[in-house]
Amino acid sequence: MRHSIQNWLVVTFAGLALGAFPGCGGNDTGQREHAPEAVKADAGHAAEHPAEAAVKAESAGLPTAQHKALFGPLPAEMTADSNPLTPAKIDLGRMLYYDTRLSKSQQISCNSCHQLDHYGVDGEPTSPGHKGQRGARNSPTVYNAALHLAQFWDGREPDVEAQAKGPILNPVEMAMPSPEAVVAVVKSIPGYAAAFAAAFPEEADPITYDNLAKAIGAFERKLVTPGRWDRWLAGDATALTAAERRGLDLFVESGCTICHMGPDLGGSLYQKMGLVKPYPLTDEGRGAITGNEAERFFFKVPSLRNVAETAPYFHDGSVTTLEEAVRIMLDYQLGRSVTAPQMSDLLAFLKALTGDLPKAYIAMPELPPSGPDTPGPDLS
Amino acid sequence: MRHSIQNWLVVTFAGLALGAFPGCGGNDTGQREHAPEAVKADAGHAAEHPAEAAVKAESAGLPTAQHKALFGPLPAEMTADSNPLTPAKIDLGRMLYYDTRLSKSQQISCNSCHQLDHYGVDGEPTSPGHKGQRGARNSPTVYNAALHLAQFWDGREPDVEAQAKGPILNPVEMAMPSPEAVVAVVKSIPGYAAAFAAAFPEEADPITYDNLAKAIGAFERKLVTPGRWDRWLAGDATALTAAERRGLDLFVESGCTICHMGPDLGGSLYQKMGLVKPYPLTDEGRGAITGNEAERFFFKVPSLRNVAETAPYFHDGSVTTLEEAVRIMLDYQLGRSVTAPQMSDLLAFLKALTGDLPKAYIAMPELPPSGPDTPGPDLS
Repeated sequence: MRHSIQNWLVVTFAGLALGAFPGCGGNDTGQREHAPEAVKADAGHAAEHPAEAAVKAESAGLPTAQHKALFGPLPAEMTADSNPLTPAKIDLGRMLYYDTRLSKSQQISCNSCHQLDHYGVDGEPTSPGHKGQRGARNSPTVYNAALHLAQFWDGREPDVEAQAKGPILNPVEMAMPSPEAVVAVVKSIPGYAAAFAAAFPEEADPITYDNLAKAIGAFERKLVTPGRWDRWLAGDATALTAAERRGLDLFVESGCTICHMGPDLGGSLYQKMGLVKPYPLTDEGRGAITGNEAERFFFKVPSLRNVAETAPYFHDGSVTTLEEAVRIMLDYQLGRSVTAPQMSDLLAFLKALTGDLPKAYIAMPELPPSGPDTPGPDLS
Repeated sequence: MRHSIQNWLVVTFAGLALGAFPGCGGNDTGQREHAPEAVKADAGHAAEHPAEAAVKAESAGLPTAQHKALFGPLPAEMTADSNPLTPAKIDLGRMLYYDTRLSKSQQISCNSCHQLDHYGVDGEPTSPGHKGQRGARNSPTVYNAALHLAQFWDGREPDVEAQAKGPILNPVEMAMPSPEAVVAVVKSIPGYAAAFAAAFPEEADPITYDNLAKAIGAFERKLVTPGRWDRWLAGDATALTAAERRGLDLFVESGCTICHMGPDLGGSLYQKMGLVKPYPLTDEGRGAITGNEAERFFFKVPSLRNVAETAPYFHDGSVTTLEEAVRIMLDYQLGRSVTAPQMSDLLAFLKALTGDLPKAYIAMPELPPSGPDTPGPDLS
């Protein structure tokens, strides 16, 4: 069964991927080569031959079966059985996401580093935290992030709920001294009592650090940014320009999709930074978490959704332009370079991955006023 | 600093990787193309220019800097701070590895499925366990396995010590009812008392299930198989034939190394089976362990060391020949196919990854005789 499927489908895909390797003398308008054994008809199959379907789709500017297998649609929300989404929980999460009173200085919220109206980032190489301190890693976008296999550049937390607990307590970020201190602040704000009760109706004492993280996580699980790219994947041939489609072809054929795959074009695996030649690194990435030599200098492959809007790039935010980031990836990960027109197409494709911000959903809500026991800012 | 390193090195690598894409009309004897901006001399650097060094190395049949970055040497032993290797512990582990009394039927040992004189495999799609039962996954080789980021096809155990505990208790494998039952068997064999005491000299009661696993793990941490490939990587140009080097070039340029990298040519990451088109799968692999949609159908990328000796292939052992396995990988993972001569070169390269078995190290030791309380086989 497997083998017949495979012989039947090989015609579809072999030609597409072999058509246009960058820099090998081909052109990118359709040069093809089939292995002799691949050119077989399946007489027992009455439907349109997949090779014909693929050529038709491609020539019409439509996504092919290969594109659909590689990327797939962005879900409307990024659900998890462990944290069912309810309107009350999401509304609470939105308030907490924006509430600077969850930081020691009362100046920093989740949104300070992951700015929702700036595609979930702050544009800084590394973000200023408590008293302007900066960590070693770039703040990644929160949009579409709940799809990832794990959170943080090194994947040290399994989901957005667990992630949310980290920065609040990190001394160089929001710098709260303990989960109990956070809970005390939330309890001191009278309006949160009803909001937590509505979000966690089964619980007698719903204001807990775990529930705070669940509410923020629930809010984040709807931070998706479908856009032109998704309309194209869904069959709207006009949603991408010819240059963007050329860039997509180059992206696939260069091997970018071996890591940047799935609905998020990333977030599915860890990969070594500096694969075909050593990249200058001190940060050992995932290797420092697992202790495995095999994962030294591995980082979570970031999503390329909205990548044109989320500079600077890489785990340390050290690269300021998308073109430079692409050049480094081609060079250090794939051992390749591209011509100037090819780079232009690649960048056009990557810019087409910019989605639409859910403006109504992310609008900053009115936050409940502090109570008499709510502590003031602590700048020490 | 990073940018100057990178501009300086790009000349070295860009040409190598762009030289010979399969099926794009180039030949594989040195067609090159440089991006215009890549061709820059570094006047401040007095040593041999790396582009010249790379061309010299390649034309002499020597490994290039790119090869060294991609692969790296196999260590003499695969150490872990959590389990220091001592001769006594290793000798104990070797005995336990071969001891069928660790199975309910007393017919199955570690070596039954991971046969050390057969490159650590049994040649079966899935291995026969207790009463001939078979699981759903192929028994992978134990050679060089301690280098992997984690153990099992789905990475559900972190290291070889944790792995060793699984099959002994699995009802369809060695089928022992509990760790306590295993410990009771070991304690009933008089000769093991001194062996455990020598292996764990600090411990008053050293015969424990954890220590049994540590001893087996310690033995496995020296199961490395350096061979011709390593001699070539170390600078012996004669260690690979011209066909094997052509196969290596094709392997790198086709993108195989994006997953099959490092000293083990694999074992460093999880990847989706069926990347550019869906592969017929029921086993969800790592996704079933983590529950992450992003990892559905992901499996640990297996090592390609000794791959010519470890058929059948893939997580389910469903593919019997190496050529078919390569064809499926090219097709489903990379969207490519190769010509018959290219396949021949690829297979030649993969066969060159067969290393030397450590025959003296793996020789089956004399096992301590059973005592009066040692249970007999239980075939129920």
